[in-house]
Amino acid sequence: MTSAGPGRPRHQQPSRPGATAREEILDAAAELFTTQGFASTSTRSIADAVGIRQSSLYHHFKTKDDILEDLLEGTVSGGLTFARAVAALPAGTPQTEGLAGSRLHAVALYDGTQLCTARWNLGVLYHLPEVRSTRFARFLNDRQELRHLYGELGGGLSATAAGPDGGDFTFRLVESLIYLRADGAVGPDSPLQAADAGLILCGLGRELPAIRAASRSLIDRLA
Amino acid sequence: MTSAGPGRPRHQQPSRPGATAREEILDAAAELFTTQGFASTSTRSIADAVGIRQSSLYHHFKTKDDILEDLLEGTVSGGLTFARAVAALPAGTPQTEGLAGSRLHAVALYDGTQLCTARWNLGVLYHLPEVRSTRFARFLNDRQELRHLYGELGGGLSATAAGPDGGDFTFRLVESLIYLRADGAVGPDSPLQAADAGLILCGLGRELPAIRAASRSLIDRLA
Repeated sequence: MTSAGPGRPRHQQPSRPGATAREEILDAAAELFTTQGFASTSTRSIADAVGIRQSSLYHHFKTKDDILEDLLEGTVSGGLTFARAVAALPAGTPQTEGLAGSRLHAVALYDGTQLCTARWNLGVLYHLPEVRSTRFARFLNDRQELRHLYGELGGGLSATAAGPDGGDFTFRLVESLIYLRADGAVGPDSPLQAADAGLILCGLGRELPAIRAASRSLIDRLA
Repeated sequence: MTSAGPGRPRHQQPSRPGATAREEILDAAAELFTTQGFASTSTRSIADAVGIRQSSLYHHFKTKDDILEDLLEGTVSGGLTFARAVAALPAGTPQTEGLAGSRLHAVALYDGTQLCTARWNLGVLYHLPEVRSTRFARFLNDRQELRHLYGELGGGLSATAAGPDGGDFTFRLVESLIYLRADGAVGPDSPLQAADAGLILCGLGRELPAIRAASRSLIDRLA
């Protein structure tokens, strides 16, 4: 593996997932940000971890903030795209009618699965003081839109629930998977349990078996 | 207020809550850690924010980690003391009998209120990479004990709920107040709503009015 073949050898063999240097940089940065901390990680140490020169890194990302923005955006973009598709389904299509709550359940299950299975647990960076700046407006706006979609899909479901906003509780339960994972306590069923809990808070606990089945078929169809 | 009276004037008038220099240091550090970040804050900048020399700060805390440990411990100690007292109540006392779930509700409401009303939202520091070290074992163990007490108080309540562990979900909902607060979305009813949601996940939604009353009287009696 490490023997030099023909042609100009790289400084180091690629050891990271990612088809491109850009993806390798993102992967190395994600590892360092989540294990050493964002402020404590230099662009130099990211370049070293990839096995490239710092000047090559600057070819792809002008600043460390640019790298962080890409990584944060990556934690919400999949869930947001899916939630937009689910929210855009016309009411009354075979996939949605008769099962109030299956759309919210599908979004929670899909989003939560992404948060639990992504290679690095980047959600722990959401509340860094550094991330409050307008510099990260794209990520902050996308996370806000995702949160609103949860609220929209949960709206009107809570006929029997005591809570005022089952959709927002579902969003919070899904994001709590980030911290469950950081505590080493996440299991394969955790995303489904979080989605189920959200629907219980919407007052639909008794319909869960049917909702789960409709949610799965929505994910199969749209994801 | 700022005119120099008799005696040796302080470098700066105290402007922070706290009867002692130690408390002023903790308050300044809490502000800087939550607004500038932990890694980006030096002991020098903490001393400057208090208006004391760095050498005076070292008289109280040997390292920045010692300050962080005190602050993190402060976020769980109140809730843990209360939860221990609640868990130690003999089953069948007038405060607990007949209202399964009121003990869990009281712990969630008390703990969540602490997290929402503390001067600084220090919970956002829980998942810093720096905090995973054994250096913070006292805080990590106390948070774990608090989590176990939630699980213990929630155990056996979930007769009708779909979720496997209403107590742990309640713990997660209470901690989600940290992130709701960081998002500027916490309101005066948020701790009560989180406690209520936890009890709904334990299958006790229909008993909430009575549970709330019993929970309040437990807090009045023990807090």
